Order: sequence, then structure tokens, then C-alpha cells
Amino acid sequence: MEQASAALPEVAAALAPHTGRAQVIGLTGAPGVGKSTSTNALVRAFRAEGKRVAVIAVDPSSPFSGGALLGDRVRMGDHATDPGVFIRSMATRGHLGGLSWATPQALRVLDAAGFDVILVETVGVGQSEVEVVALADTTIVLLAPGMGDGIQAAKAGILEIADVFVVNKADRDGADQTARDLKYMLSLGRRDRSGPAWRPPVVKTVAARMEGLDRVVEAIAEHHTWMSDHGELSERRLRRAGAEIEAIAVERVRTRLGPSDDLAKRVVSGELDPFAAAELLISGNLRS
Amino acid sequence: MEQASAALPEVAAALAPHTGRAQVIGLTGAPGVGKSTSTNALVRAFRAEGKRVAVIAVDPSSPFSGGALLGDRVRMGDHATDPGVFIRSMATRGHLGGLSWATPQALRVLDAAGFDVILVETVGVGQSEVEVVALADTTIVLLAPGMGDGIQAAKAGILEIADVFVVNKADRDGADQTARDLKYMLSLGRRDRSGPAWRPPVVKTVAARMEGLDRVVEAIAEHHTWMSDHGELSERRLRRAGAEIEAIAVERVRTRLGPSDDLAKRVVSGELDPFAAAELLISGNLRS
Repeated sequence: MEQASAALPEVAAALAPHTGRAQVIGLTGAPGVGKSTSTNALVRAFRAEGKRVAVIAVDPSSPFSGGALLGDRVRMGDHATDPGVFIRSMATRGHLGGLSWATPQALRVLDAAGFDVILVETVGVGQSEVEVVALADTTIVLLAPGMGDGIQAAKAGILEIADVFVVNKADRDGADQTARDLKYMLSLGRRDRSGPAWRPPVVKTVAARMEGLDRVVEAIAEHHTWMSDHGELSERRLRRAGAEIEAIAVERVRTRLGPSDDLAKRVVSGELDPFAAAELLISGNLRS
Repeated sequence: MEQASAALPEVAAALAPHTGRAQVIGLTGAPGVGKSTSTNALVRAFRAEGKRVAVIAVDPSSPFSGGALLGDRVRMGDHATDPGVFIRSMATRGHLGGLSWATPQALRVLDAAGFDVILVETVGVGQSEVEVVALADTTIVLLAPGMGDGIQAAKAGILEIADVFVVNKADRDGADQTARDLKYMLSLGRRDRSGPAWRPPVVKTVAARMEGLDRVVEAIAEHHTWMSDHGELSERRLRRAGAEIEAIAVERVRTRLGPSDDLAKRVVSGELDPFAAAELLISGNLRS
């Protein structure tokens, strides 16, 4: 990353005029709800419409990002020979901020490369994942029946970020109940909003059999139209750009801070507190 | 947080000489493996030894950190009237880096307050959670039978951070298989290590019935002794302090960067790339 990052600014500058066309769709949900199957099904549904689709998987529990265990090629499956499909996993390990720093760069490259749709798949736990997916044009939150999903989703702050809810594995017992619970919780949560608000639809699917996917694609399109009509699309893209700029700036500053080994020793010994140490680190490096 | 943070440096300076005594134990695992029950059981086991125990829950899927839905008092359960037990959930939402920034401060306060053991409970997905828990003196990774845990754990990078493995719900079918899979994967992963390495034990528990908890406490003590003997304990505490200093420094710099709204507009329009924008943000604020 350190070496690659040296060339990135030039690449980014060259790409800048060609970005802003792709539709960015976030897909998130707890492990076991069928994220990979749904991603595959969505890719197929968009391909059927003739759209070029890229997938970025930043889900550490997903086979997409299984790294050494299960590579991208394994997951490509049906799409392995389709030049209109690009699938790549992103490492979620490494220093903090790595995810928020790298994902927008990947989006930018794929956008400029002419992909119509970019799917970002993340697991719905962990603040950085949620933040990244919350910056998508449309965020799909995936649930499955019988996992106490309603409460889990509410606790993980997932209700607020969803633009479209998908209850997958809808052929299982409890799917209707999950959809009902969700609608009930949505009715509670939205009461205090002012102005016209988008009401996230709840769509039932059986992704493994491609059932309900047309309705998901439809819901995404409806949300996109609603966002364009209400100025929300440009608003989100501004927030995404702002978050990206800040992440890069913080990352650059971090590298300039340098090592803190000696300061850490003094903190461990109780001689110094970490706030004083942080100030010494900043004044010793950024202002020199 | 903004207001509270103003007083923190003074508090931290006063606490500094009184820290470094508590044993910090990380507990992580996927949703559904029984983290809350295990945390409760561990608290009880440590209390039986006369130790004062604090719990910090940074697990967004845990009832501990359920926020408005399920507060700390609900989770306290048996321990609600025990002055030797402190349980607090940490918000995992908010800006990036919030988790890594706030958790060490809480550790520091509880350490200085004289708690012998501090349990940090996090869900084992999401890089920031993993990073925080990886900085504990001893990290326990919790699994349960029949969830494809071995592979899931390996994919989530959890094998590397575990000092003690606990297979909970060991009365269920497949517990022995899970333990065997785990030991096999450990034997593969540890081959390339040089020097004396700690071999993470695999302990089976039924936390809901307090079965096997004595063995977990024993394994934690063994690991602690091994770390002290091999200089690893001070090494980890140095790394923890270093990470803390850096997180504070980055946070302070971030607040000085200020808003990037105008730059974001220029990036969205394609006039500017985000790297150039980040440099403008840095030069406009940090160097003025």
C-alpha cells in the first residue's frame, strides 16, 4: 500500500473528470443472511438489464474476501467469463482507517472505468463498515427469518442506514413475521422525522432461486429517482467526497506523525499520560 | 464527547501513576456464540476468586451495548448489587476512530480505580473491534458448535489474535468436532513461527451452566504467566500505549482539519481529485 499510494494521487487526478456516473449500492447484513448469494443474484439481475456491474466485498466474513482461503476466482462462479462483471475483495485488516481510505479509491477507479453499478458488500457490524456502506447512493440491508433480526438490526444502527430492506430466505418459516416486525419498527422510528422522507420498502427474496430480485432492482431504481428528485443524491455524494478527503488527509497526517515508541514507554511507566504524549508526538513531528 | 474531552487530559495526567495494574482480557466472537453469557460467567468466576471485575462492552450486537433498547442495568443481572462489579457499554457509532480512542481511556480509569480484571467484550467482526481486543493482555476467542466457526474464524483473522479459544455450548452436537477443527487449523498456522510460541489452549464450556469456567480462568492465568516470563506482557502494553497515543494524536489533528465542504463540491464536480483536496485541507488548516 505504501508504494502503491505514491502513484495514486496522479491516477486520481487523471480519473477525476470521468467519475460521478456509477450508481453505488451498499449491501449489508449479519453473517448467515445470504449476503454472497444475494450479491450474486443482484449481479445477475443487473446483467440481465445489460448493465456493467462491479462488486467490492469488504465483508471479512464473506467468501468474497476470504483471501487465501477462498479467492475472488472461486466466488466469480457464473460470472467468471463475463467481461461486464468485476469482483474484487478488499482487505479489512491493517491500520485503522484503511477501509474508509481504500474503498473510495476503488469506487473511483471502477466508476471511471465505466461500470454502471458498483455493489459494495459489507457485514453489518463494525463502525467502519457501516460508515462506508452508509455513503452509498442506495443501501440495502439484508435480513433472514428466525435470527431475531429486527432487534439485532435496530441495535446495530442498521435501521437508520437502510434505504431498502430485503428479507432473504423468504421460503423459510417466520419470513412474514420478520417483514412485519421490520415494518412495525420502521413505523416507530420514522415518526419524529420532518419533511418528506423516503419510506424504505421491505422486499422478500429467495436469492438462491432468483425469486424477488426484480423487485429489489425496482426498489433500488425507485430510491434513486426519489433521491434525484429531492436533492438527496448530490447531498450523499458530497458527504461521500467529504469523508474521502478527510480520510486521506488523516492518513497523510498519520504517516507524518512517525513512531511513538519512546513516548509509549513513558506512558506505560506512568511518567506521562497519553494525552500529553499525543501532544508531544504532534509538536515533535507536524510542527518541525 | 467534545465537552467531556476537554477535561480528559487533566484526568489522564492524574491517573497516570496509578495505572498498569489491571489485567485486561479481550473477549470476542461472532453473534450467537454466547458472548454475553460467557462474560457473565467469567465475571462470576473471577468474583469467586475475590477479584474486582469491570466489563466494557464494545459489541454492537451485544445486549450490553444495546443502548436504548437494553441498558446496562438489564444486563447487570446477578451483579447489579455487587460493588466489585462494574459494567458499562461503549458506543461504537460516531466518527471513525471513536472506538480506539475511547476504549483505552475507559481502561485507564478502571485500572486506576483498582479493578483487578477488565473484560473487554467485542464482536469479532470489524477491524476496529479486532484491533482493540488484540491489544488486551489476553484475548479469548469464543466459538460455538455448528456454525462453520473454524473457517469463519480463520477468515476474520481471529485465529491470529486468540490466546485462548473457548468452544461454548459444548453440550451441543458438534462441539468436539469444532474443537478438533480448531486444533487442526492451529497446527497448520503455527508451523512457520520461530522461537518459543504460546500454544492457545482450546477450552470447552457451557457458560449458561457455569461449566468449564474454572478451566478458562486457569488458561488465562497460564497465559499471563507465560507472557510475563517471555517479556510479551510489557511488549503488548507498549503496543497498547503506542496505539493509544497515536489514536489521540490523530483525533486531535482531525478536529484541527476543519470542514471540507467546499473541497467536497470541487471533487464531486470532477474539478479536483480527493488527494489534491486532502493536501489543500492540510495546508489550509494545519500549517496556517
